[in-house]
Formats: sequence, C-alpha cells, structure tokens
Amino acid sequence: MKKQEQADLDAHWRALNYLAAGQIYLTRNPLLTEPLTPGDIKPRLLGHWGTCPGLNLVYTHLNRVIGARDLDAVCVWGPGHGGPAVYAGAWLDGSYGEAHPDVSRDAAGMARLFRQFSFPGGTPSHVAPVVPGSFHEGGELGYSLAHAYGAAFDNPGLVAVCVIGDGEAETGPLAGSWHANKFLDPVHDGAVLPVLHLNGYKIAGPTVLSRIPESELDELLRGYGHEPLHVSAGSAPGDTARAHRDMAAATDAALDRIAEIQQAARAKGGRGRTAARPRWPAIVLRTPKGWTGPEYVDGTPVEGTWRSHQVPLPGVRENPGHLAELERWLRSYEPQTLFDADGRPRPQVLACVPHGDRRLGANPHANGGRLLRSLPLPGPDRYAVAVDRPGVRRHEPTRVLGGMLRQVMADTAERRDFRVFGPDETASNRLQELFEVTDRAWQAETEETDEHHGPHGRVMEVLSEHLCQGWLEGYVLTGRHGLFSSYEAFAHIVASMAAQHVKWIRTAGEEPWRAPVAGLNYLLTSHVWRQDHNGFSHQDPGFVDHILNKSPGSVRVYLPPDTNTLLCVADHVLRTRDVVNVVVAGKQPSFDWLTPEEARAHCLRGVGIWEWAGTERPGEAPDAVLACAGDVPTQEVLAAAALLRQHLPELAVRVVNVVDIARLMPHEDHPHGMTAREFHSVFTHEKPVVFAYHGYPWLIHRLAYRHAGHDQLHVRGYKEMGTTTTPFDMVVRNDLDRYRLVMDVIDRVPGLAVRAAALRQRMADVRGRHHAWVRAHGTDLPEVADWTWPGPRE
Amino acid sequence: MKKQEQADLDAHWRALNYLAAGQIYLTRNPLLTEPLTPGDIKPRLLGHWGTCPGLNLVYTHLNRVIGARDLDAVCVWGPGHGGPAVYAGAWLDGSYGEAHPDVSRDAAGMARLFRQFSFPGGTPSHVAPVVPGSFHEGGELGYSLAHAYGAAFDNPGLVAVCVIGDGEAETGPLAGSWHANKFLDPVHDGAVLPVLHLNGYKIAGPTVLSRIPESELDELLRGYGHEPLHVSAGSAPGDTARAHRDMAAATDAALDRIAEIQQAARAKGGRGRTAARPRWPAIVLRTPKGWTGPEYVDGTPVEGTWRSHQVPLPGVRENPGHLAELERWLRSYEPQTLFDADGRPRPQVLACVPHGDRRLGANPHANGGRLLRSLPLPGPDRYAVAVDRPGVRRHEPTRVLGGMLRQVMADTAERRDFRVFGPDETASNRLQELFEVTDRAWQAETEETDEHHGPHGRVMEVLSEHLCQGWLEGYVLTGRHGLFSSYEAFAHIVASMAAQHVKWIRTAGEEPWRAPVAGLNYLLTSHVWRQDHNGFSHQDPGFVDHILNKSPGSVRVYLPPDTNTLLCVADHVLRTRDVVNVVVAGKQPSFDWLTPEEARAHCLRGVGIWEWAGTERPGEAPDAVLACAGDVPTQEVLAAAALLRQHLPELAVRVVNVVDIARLMPHEDHPHGMTAREFHSVFTHEKPVVFAYHGYPWLIHRLAYRHAGHDQLHVRGYKEMGTTTTPFDMVVRNDLDRYRLVMDVIDRVPGLAVRAAALRQRMADVRGRHHAWVRAHGTDLPEVADWTWPGPRE
Repeated sequence: MKKQEQADLDAHWRALNYLAAGQIYLTRNPLLTEPLTPGDIKPRLLGHWGTCPGLNLVYTHLNRVIGARDLDAVCVWGPGHGGPAVYAGAWLDGSYGEAHPDVSRDAAGMARLFRQFSFPGGTPSHVAPVVPGSFHEGGELGYSLAHAYGAAFDNPGLVAVCVIGDGEAETGPLAGSWHANKFLDPVHDGAVLPVLHLNGYKIAGPTVLSRIPESELDELLRGYGHEPLHVSAGSAPGDTARAHRDMAAATDAALDRIAEIQQAARAKGGRGRTAARPRWPAIVLRTPKGWTGPEYVDGTPVEGTWRSHQVPLPGVRENPGHLAELERWLRSYEPQTLFDADGRPRPQVLACVPHGDRRLGANPHANGGRLLRSLPLPGPDRYAVAVDRPGVRRHEPTRVLGGMLRQVMADTAERRDFRVFGPDETASNRLQELFEVTDRAWQAETEETDEHHGPHGRVMEVLSEHLCQGWLEGYVLTGRHGLFSSYEAFAHIVASMAAQHVKWIRTAGEEPWRAPVAGLNYLLTSHVWRQDHNGFSHQDPGFVDHILNKSPGSVRVYLPPDTNTLLCVADHVLRTRDVVNVVVAGKQPSFDWLTPEEARAHCLRGVGIWEWAGTERPGEAPDAVLACAGDVPTQEVLAAAALLRQHLPELAVRVVNVVDIARLMPHEDHPHGMTAREFHSVFTHEKPVVFAYHGYPWLIHRLAYRHAGHDQLHVRGYKEMGTTTTPFDMVVRNDLDRYRLVMDVIDRVPGLAVRAAALRQRMADVRGRHHAWVRAHGTDLPEVADWTWPGPRE
Repeated sequence: MKKQEQADLDAHWRALNYLAAGQIYLTRNPLLTEPLTPGDIKPRLLGHWGTCPGLNLVYTHLNRVIGARDLDAVCVWGPGHGGPAVYAGAWLDGSYGEAHPDVSRDAAGMARLFRQFSFPGGTPSHVAPVVPGSFHEGGELGYSLAHAYGAAFDNPGLVAVCVIGDGEAETGPLAGSWHANKFLDPVHDGAVLPVLHLNGYKIAGPTVLSRIPESELDELLRGYGHEPLHVSAGSAPGDTARAHRDMAAATDAALDRIAEIQQAARAKGGRGRTAARPRWPAIVLRTPKGWTGPEYVDGTPVEGTWRSHQVPLPGVRENPGHLAELERWLRSYEPQTLFDADGRPRPQVLACVPHGDRRLGANPHANGGRLLRSLPLPGPDRYAVAVDRPGVRRHEPTRVLGGMLRQVMADTAERRDFRVFGPDETASNRLQELFEVTDRAWQAETEETDEHHGPHGRVMEVLSEHLCQGWLEGYVLTGRHGLFSSYEAFAHIVASMAAQHVKWIRTAGEEPWRAPVAGLNYLLTSHVWRQDHNGFSHQDPGFVDHILNKSPGSVRVYLPPDTNTLLCVADHVLRTRDVVNVVVAGKQPSFDWLTPEEARAHCLRGVGIWEWAGTERPGEAPDAVLACAGDVPTQEVLAAAALLRQHLPELAVRVVNVVDIARLMPHEDHPHGMTAREFHSVFTHEKPVVFAYHGYPWLIHRLAYRHAGHDQLHVRGYKEMGTTTTPFDMVVRNDLDRYRLVMDVIDRVPGLAVRAAALRQRMADVRGRHHAWVRAHGTDLPEVADWTWPGPRE
C-alpha cells in the first residue's frame, strides 16, 4: 500500500474515532474550537466506546476495497451497541445527511449528530433503522451472521460483510450460524465475509474466543468451513500503521479468494461446481478494546480492558482531571486536520469514501424496499378446492397451499426473490409440492439416496429455528419475499428475534427515506391440537400471544378455518408490507367449509356470521352466539351448532367465525379492530357468546375486554391439558369439544338449564363414554371420527 | 474384549432393539409366542425408530463401563424422540418397574410397556419424566449438552454422558454449548462426555455434521476444545461385532482420559491445575439410521436413510407383506434367546447391567430431589434497609439483594450447591457483592487485568442466555439451587426453554417416585422502564405474560415494589420446590416504602392495601382505588395519591400494591388466586380502579377478567412506546405517569370531571411542560427528579 493511501485511510479512521467519541460526550463545541468546558458535556453520558475503534477500522477498510474494486457490499454490524461508529461512518460518507438533511456534513450537522446521540427525542445508542446502510438492529446479540447470509442469498453480485463481536460469538444462534456456508450457492448467491472482531472483553470480563490459543481458534474456524486470515492490532507506536497494512492485505486476500470461488463455480454457465465445497475466507481481527482511548483512568487500566466497554471517562462534568483527559483524548485525533473550519471533512478524510450507491450508507440492498418487486402471485382460485356442501369433504390445508407456493416458486425461478424456510419440516408440514420445482439448498456432501437436495435450491432447511428466522429477516430486509413454516410450539424459539424484527419495521416506518419491505410470514402448523404422537412437549399455541403484545400497526394474526381460507390468507400475506404475519393452519385432513368465493369474502371481512350453520331467524336477535377461531375449534363449533339444531331446534344460535384475530380488538387499539357498532352487529352486547378458540382462552378476553358485551363472553381454548392422545381427546381434555360447548350454551342461555337438562346430561354422558372408549381402543368414538356436517336445516 | 463379554453386550443390545421396536408396533403378543396377526398391532403407529438402535448401543456400553469402573454416571439423551430406546433401557435394568410396579420385568410388564407407549393415557413417545434416569425432556432440541454440564457442575464424582443427535447439533444453542468446557472445573466439577451421534439424517434429509469430511469435523471438535474419538458402525456382516469392540475401546479411552485430567487437576489438594486447559474427550459415533431395521420397504431403501426416522413399516395392519416383514424383523433379534417364557430377561441379557443406584435408570442425580438439601438462608432481616418514613431514601434493590446472595454463596462454600447464572451481567445487575466470596467460573486463558475470574468460581457468566438457562435447569434438576439474572427483555431468548422446564416439573409432579426439586428462579432486572441508553431494543416486559400462560400450579411471578420486599421475595423463592419463579426488580436507586416487618407481612399476603398512602376513612368505602405492581408504577401511584390528597383532600383514595401477580387471578385458576370475597375486600366491586402495572396493561385484564368488578378496572402499563429517553419520559410516553393517573381518577370517579376540571388541566399542563423540558435539557423536570413522598396526612 502506498504511503499516501495509508495516510488517507488513517485520516478517515481518525475522523471516525473522533466522531464516535464526540457523540458520546459533546453537546456543543463539536470541533473543539474552544477549550473544553463542563458545559460542552452532555448531562447524561451514555454509549459504548469500547468496540467503536475496531468497527471504525472495518468501515475505513471496506471503503477502500469498495472503491478499489467497485464492490457491491453491505455490512452487518454485529456489535450494534457500537452505534457511534456506524453513525460516524454514514455521516462521513454523506449518506446520513442525505437521509436526515438537518444532520448535514458540516459543523452544524456535526453538532446535531453529537447532541442527538442517545438523547431523549434523538437517536438510539445502538445501530437502528435511523442509520442508513443498516438492516440489523443492534442490541440483542446473536443474529448478525444469519442476517448477512439472508442478504447474500440470491444476490450474486453482493458481498455481505459481517462483523461478529467476540461477545456475540458466545451466543448459541451465532455459533450455529457459522454452518450457513453449507447452504450458500456460489453460483446464484453472493458472498458472506465474516470478520470476527476479538477485542477481548464483554461488559465485565473476557470472551471465550479471545482466550483460547490461536491454533485452537483456527481449528474452530476451519471446522466451520472457513479459512481464517488474521489481523492483530496493538496500541504501541507503529502498530496502527501495521494494522492498516494488515487489514488491507486481509480484505484483499479475502475478496480475491471470494472472486476465485465464484468464478470457478460460475464457469460453464453455473455448472462449474467442483466436487469440493469451497472453504470461504474469514477475517479474525484483534484490536484493543477502547483502542486510542484513555489508557489509564485514575490509575486503572482502561484501554485494552473491559473498563472501556461503555464510557471510559465517566466523571468529565464534575472532575476537571477527567475533563482535561477527555480533551487530550479528543485532540489526539487532531480534528483540525480532519475537518475544515466549517466542520466539513477535508479531502484526505474522504479520499477512501466510495461514491453514490456504492457507499455503505447508501447501498440499496440495505434499504431493501428500494429493490422490492411484488411477487407474481397466481391467486388462490387455481388451487381452491370445490365445496358443494360444507363439512363433508376434507383436505390437508397446508398440502393444498403447497401447490400454490409451488407456482410462486416456479414463477420466480428467474427472479429468485422468493424462498421458503423451515427447520427440516417442509415435507412434514405437507408443502412438498415445492420440490417439484426446486430443491432444498445443500452444498455439503450428497449421497445417492438423498431426495430434493441440490446446490441451487430455494427451500432452506436447517434444524435451527434461529437460522431460519435470521435468514428470512436478512432476505426480507434486503428486498425479497419469504415464508417460514414451523411447528407451532417451536416458534417460541425465535420469540425474541420476532420481537426485534417487529421493532425494526415499526421504527423503520418512521424513516420516510426507508422503502417498505415485504411482510415477514410465519406459517405455524403441526399445531397444538394435532400432536398425536409428539404430545405435551410439542403443544404450545402461545406464539400468537407474544406477537399480539407488539406494536399493533406491525402485527397480524390469521387463523383460517379451512383450506380455501388458508389460500386466501396466504395470497394476502404475500402481498403485505412492513408487517409480521402469523398464519396458524393445520396440516391434517380437515373439513372444507367455504367455497372459494365465500372464502374470499370471509377473509376480506376477517370475521363473519355463518348464517348457514346457525339457527337465527332473519331480523330476530339470536339467543346465543357460538364463535370460533382456528380449524379445530371451527369443527367443534359447527358440530355443537348441529347438535343444538337437532335437539333444541327452537333455540336461535348464531355461528361466528374469526379469521383475523385482531378484528376482536377495538378499532382504536389495532388498525384491523372492530368499531363498537361492528362488534355489536356480530356478537351482540347482551347475548351469551361461547367462543371456541385455538389457543389460550384468555387471549380472547385480553383482545376484547374493552368492548361492550365482554362480560357475556365465555371462552374455551387450550389450557395446558396436553398429552399424547387422540385428536378428539385433546379437545375433550381442554373442554373445547362439541359436547362441552353445547353444555356451555345450555348453562348460559337464561332459562335453558331446566328446559334442556336432559340434553345436558346426554352430552355429559357422551363425554364419559369417550373417556372409556379412548382408553380402551386408543381411537376416537366412531360417532366423532365419522362425523360430517349434517347439512343445512330443512 | 473377551468373546463372552461381547456376546453378553450384544444380547443386551438386541434385547433393547427388540423392546424398542415392540413399543412402536405391538399391543399384545409381546414375546411373539404366536405368529403375528394384524390384531397384535397398535391401531395407530407412532414413534421414532431411526435413532433407537444407536441410543441402545450407548445404553449397553454405558452399562458395561459403569459396571467395570463402578462409575457414577447419568446420561442425557439429546435425541429424546428415541423414547423407545430409553424406556427399553430402564425397563431392562429394572428401574422402570421399580418406579411403575405395574410395568414389571416380565411378560405382563412387557405387554404393558409396549401397549402404553404413545397410547392415549399412556406414555409419551419422547423421553419424559415418566422414564427413570431421565432429566431431559425429549422433543425440542438443542439443550442436551447444556443440561449435561449443569449436572456435572459441583458433582466431582459424576460423569454426565450426553448423546447429541446430528439434527440437534445444527441448533444454535447446541452449537454454542460446546464451549461450556471453558467453564468446567476439573477439581470441583464432574466430567461431561459428549457422544455426537451421527446417523446421518433428520426427518427428511441429511445433517450438516454427517456431510462434512471427517477431517473438518475433527477440526471443529478440536476447535471446541475436545479430542475426538471415532466409532463407525456399518450394517454389513461382522460390523456389529466390530462396533461393540470399537465402542468399548472408545468409552474406555474417554474415561481413562477423564480420570487422568481429574487426577492431575486434583493433585496437591486441588492446586494441581496445570497451565493448559485440558482437552476433554468426545466420542463421534456413526451408526446407520434405523440400524437392524428393514433394509428396504416396497423396494425403497429404508435402513441407513431418513425414511427410517419414524415408523419404517407403516402399513402392517393392512398390508400382509409389511406384517410378514415386521415379524421377520422382530424375530431377527431372537427374542426367545433374550427372554424366558415368562418374559423375564435371561441372565446373559442382564450380565452387563449394573446394580442398585449405579443403574442409569436409578442414579439419584437423575432424580435430583432425592439429593436436594434446603439452602442455608440468612433470612432477609440482616440485609433489610431501615425505613423511618416511606418514599424518602432510595436504594438499589438488586445491590442490596447481592449482599444476601453473597451470604448464601459464602454459606454454601463447602456444600457447593448454589450458583448464580447470567449473561455477563452479574455486576451490571448490581449483584457484585457475590465477588467478595466467589469468582466467575473461568478455565480459559487469563490476563493480569481480569477481575473476579477464577477456576473454582460459582458465578456462571457466558454471553448466552441459552447456556445460562440450560446450565441452571441441569443444575436444579440434579438437586441443587440457583438463580438466573437477566436483562428483562432478553429473557424471551429462553422463552421456549422455560416453557419446556415448566412442562417437565408439572409432569414430574405426577410421578410420585420423583422427589421435588428446587424452584428455578429468574431475576429479571435492567427492566423496561430503565433502559435509558439502550432504548427500544431492550424494552420488553412480556416474559411474564409468557410464563403466566403455563400450568398455574408451576408458575409464580413476583414484582416487589422496593428493596425490603425484594429481599423477602428472594428469600421465599429460594425455599420453593417444583416451580418456576419470575422476580422482576430494578437495579436503579428507587424508593424504600416498607419497613422490614411491613415488607414481610406484605409479601406474605402478596397483595395489600397501603392505608398510609391513601385517604380512605375507616369503615367507609373509598371513592377510587389506585393499584400498582412493580417498582416504577408503585412510585407513580404513590406520587399520584399524594397529588390527589393535596388537591382533592376530600376524595377517599385507596392505594393497593400487588407483589404476587397471580393473586389477581380467581382462586380456581391459580393456587395463589384470590377468592371473590378477598378480591372484593381489596378492589371493591363497583369503585373505579386505576391500576398502574409494570408490563403490558392487558395482562392485568387477562388475569382478573373473571372477577366481579372487572369492568371497573382501568389499567396503565407499557404499550410499546419505547425509545432512548429519561426515566420519567418513559412513563409519560406510556401514560403511566403520576399526572396521567390523577387524570384517570378524575375521569372515572362519578361527578369529579366537573369538580376537578382545574386540577385535571393542571396535570395536563405539567405533562406538556415535561415534554418541552426533556427535549431541551435531556433530563427530567426538577419537580419529578427531586420528588419524595410528602409524608402521611396530618
């Protein structure tokens, strides 16, 4: 590297370090044009300095290689608590000011950049949507590498650099993410370049990977399928210059190797794949924590220790010694050589900064909505099942959905902007028609007996919900579409990730320069009611509860009751933007209730009265409402309504089905919520409502409690009475069965208790018979197993 | 190995395979004394065969080495879906029949063992509490290795063997768990022997670790700090004999190495630790999936492929060809040579089985309650803070708690049955007094500047919530005590693990032979209201909602409002058995409200009226109730009550504080729930209740909706209005602040809207003033920052 280039890089790096420290400390006097006074210091000192200088070194050197190679690159900043570094980089490359014109690249803008950082009404101390170039929330650790892979999939020209902190590297999800290279197609995907940033410490102590011998770390990375390249920086004189040279050499070596791998694989029209899976490069970057910051504070070592994790000089407002030390520290970057009198970066500082969309802060992949194209969707009609009469024929809803997804997959074969993710359950969840048009992505060894595994596949299966979720997030945030199918119970594994994603899209929605991204879609199947052989450990419908706690503008939950409604819901969610959609649907054969047209109309409303299933007389109020949400509860409610019609024909029963569960909320609390008038028109305010719900019954109360008539609501659902048993026994154990629902209606309609006492007893008797039968035979009562809907009333 | 021993081992292994297959298929004719007929076959064929033969090989060979070395060993079965293997092992070593006398070790018991498996009212298909010797739920994958380490900590004589499936090995938590060897003390802890079981396939495809070159896998394991030992079994003639020899050699080598490591470390009274961290052995066991089962079914390869994952011959009831193939398969184990005419195992089969408590199914560590001793607890009084007057002095609650925990740590220095777990946040969460008596456990390299890291420490810090949780679960389930302190928001990372643990203890509670274990205790701190610099990504109080969805008998949630109540709650939870306790408490300075005596009485009741804070007149009903749960809401309610007293002295306001949040549920729904009479005596049925709650407000409705008077309940809480801001701005943004609460009372007490219109406007004005102030100064209004409780009314 030429001396001049090295000096330019160092100027950029020093500018970043200055800007990072300035954000943590200064509320005015940003260029230190005056001697520092306590009044220049923020009232509360908040932020994480320790990781910043290392991140800054990466930012500087990525600028260099992007410029030198006209590289299309994004960077995922795993140590996102180093917000000051990433803010500084984007401010310096001009992208921050373009997104936020009041934070211009001059003294006034610098003052604003400093003041707003971690200040009420300002910017978060972690990397967040406010920072251009970012698509990875800083804070919760563990998902950076998965996000980088998600960005790289189907972006053959992209290099997704991923800085992994050594703290983050201790998390399970990150540890598992290293194996993602067995799923990266060098032909159709871009590259991921991990930069393992070892600065040695977490909040209060050392990190595991910084305290094992380098030979052992190399074995680990090779075992993960990578070839390590080492860069080690120290804080002795001359170390910085060497660090620049080594970092430049390592990034060049890594990118050369990536180019070689890709060229080899892409030769002969993509058929150049060699027998051996490539060993992708990875950089191990060792820098002192808090590098270039105060070496000692009050006699205690700070630079190079965990004490520099947050604010290395905490007492600057009160302690003149600390203040002087801060001034010495800030002036050590020689700000007057970096910025002119107006605060504009001098040309040398900007020499390494790339131009236009190549800048890290401006790369369109990091603002994926800019690249997003609507999916070519075939619509549900071609896949809809014919329904002559409700409740007679059965289909496996997810299997039929698989046909529709197969078409989406086929129609995106060239565009490659749609993938399906799941932990080894695509076929188990009956979506196997996908394999008629694509494979499971697989770059590891293959054997003769493997089926539907190939190097270019777009079904992503790995037995890690974290990887599936992280990949999908990265894929969606860089402007593509996807669906994650999971066993319902195990969606909790990614509860925290889902919450962070909701936060991201909600906050990103407040940034007008960020374009909307596709909805993040969950298909929760193999659900609580049909864990016939897996039993209690696989029974948990609570992911919906978790999601519905989040920002209402960003979360949607659908419980389609049958195959045709599932198709309509799936078609809808694949069109949405900036939301998380949770779709709960069964994979087992279950009754068709609605024709394609009825299904479309029903899903459009989200909730509806099924007149044909009840015994209401037009113009008259019903005596009771039987409501349901979810496939199994719908079946039980329809069976209960049929029993009531048969045995108490004079009782006016209304049957209501809810597809879009947020419809139950008041309109003020959720954009899909019902107005008081709507709620009344469906549920009445004064009649008993017996509600059979798919999940925890109290969720319905939590959603509807503000509606008038809530005190008439009686909900049945899953109440942790789980076990290995038959489908019908599960509903009986949880008091969700048709017989119990009939009893509930009898118990709640005034005057019916006496009049229908015999029927109530009969219902109780059948339940007793059921208990004996299932224990003796291990199957359900024939009258339940063979039940079909008896048809409309005469 | 002698020929005879090998034959004995093979007989035991064949017996296990026979018993595993029998569980999946047979409902009668267990010894095949008659030719197999369709009537012998279960009506529903459920279970996972594929992994069983490999697990059986491990069971057999563990029996061998336990006997040969008088080894104290437990085994964690990661592929817990292989329930039939573990049931078979425990039945054969006699422990199953001891726990379940009706499943005796004879023909009748074998028939019952077979029939009950995965049958309604019977046993789950996965490993579960019903199986003696197990302390690891099968089903959700990823936690086996963490559980094994949890068992090994502070059990110097124990070897915790851990079978890791190659599917499970893909999960993040498992991938991160390998590094747990940097935390295992060879002096005071036992050993963990990982057995990575590569059978090559998940449900529908290959596994990553089975499809990378063996050299790469070896690098990976060495990088994790292990020395791999390989055993590879095939299905050709002679392979089985070799597999027995190789497995015996590998287990011997591994145990010899473990003994060497421990002896070296324990020499010189435990000061024999050498400079280098030991490289612990790990076994890599390759066996064909579905080994010894049908090689082909209908012309398709099954043995050695993913098709043997569940039921390899699915059509045996209907398809005579399948039935014949099943009979051939079962008879290939020569059951008549394994069991006598009464179904009792022949002596050769039992030759390798150890005796008494050494049996895997009978080891007391796997039924940890048998070994559990109550903690020596100093009680809260010695640590309680003096409170002359409420709401004047402040303490950091968790810091004071740290003093109490320090004493527990000191008093268990010899017993070593108490540990504190947390992801690098023990000091950040202010529990640092612990470090006066112990260290953070650390076996990796150390440097001069490290503080409180040592080889024998009992504070477990690793930046992985999964590892912390898994370690604690393993530690508690093997009969010890612990506490997991976590940032509140990031508890969601282990939501799924917590749910599985609740399921385990609830189900274990149904097994009378299982002794109760210590409560699993969470301290959630750094909570939603005080993320001043971390902001939105760190704000999430929903873990409580998740836990309260679980079996009510097994979950407890406490929100102590101040330091003295936190001490009482902590003292209580450390005495509990068979529950999960969630304690939410702040670490920032917050007001002391109750004297030690008052705190004890208040915590005993779980909910109470704070007469001194309100304006009720004895014998008269209040006009309104101001209720609170959590430290910050309590402060706001007390401030609101003081404002009301000052400005509307004639208004009778009752102040209620809730510590034990389940008290709000009806008595029928939770053992801590209130009766209707109790609820009425606290909240009234007809007066407006303004409730300030720590978390999502709708949780309070979900808990209380069945109580009369629920429609009078108005709840304020966190509603996702999170950001980086001041403490008081957070409560204002979420409408939980004192001024808003005063307005809420005015809005809800009949007739007050007009009478108190001026006060209401004044409150609104202060809120407006707050908004302007915080944006200008970045601090809270002085009147809020300097507020103290004004004292009791005159």
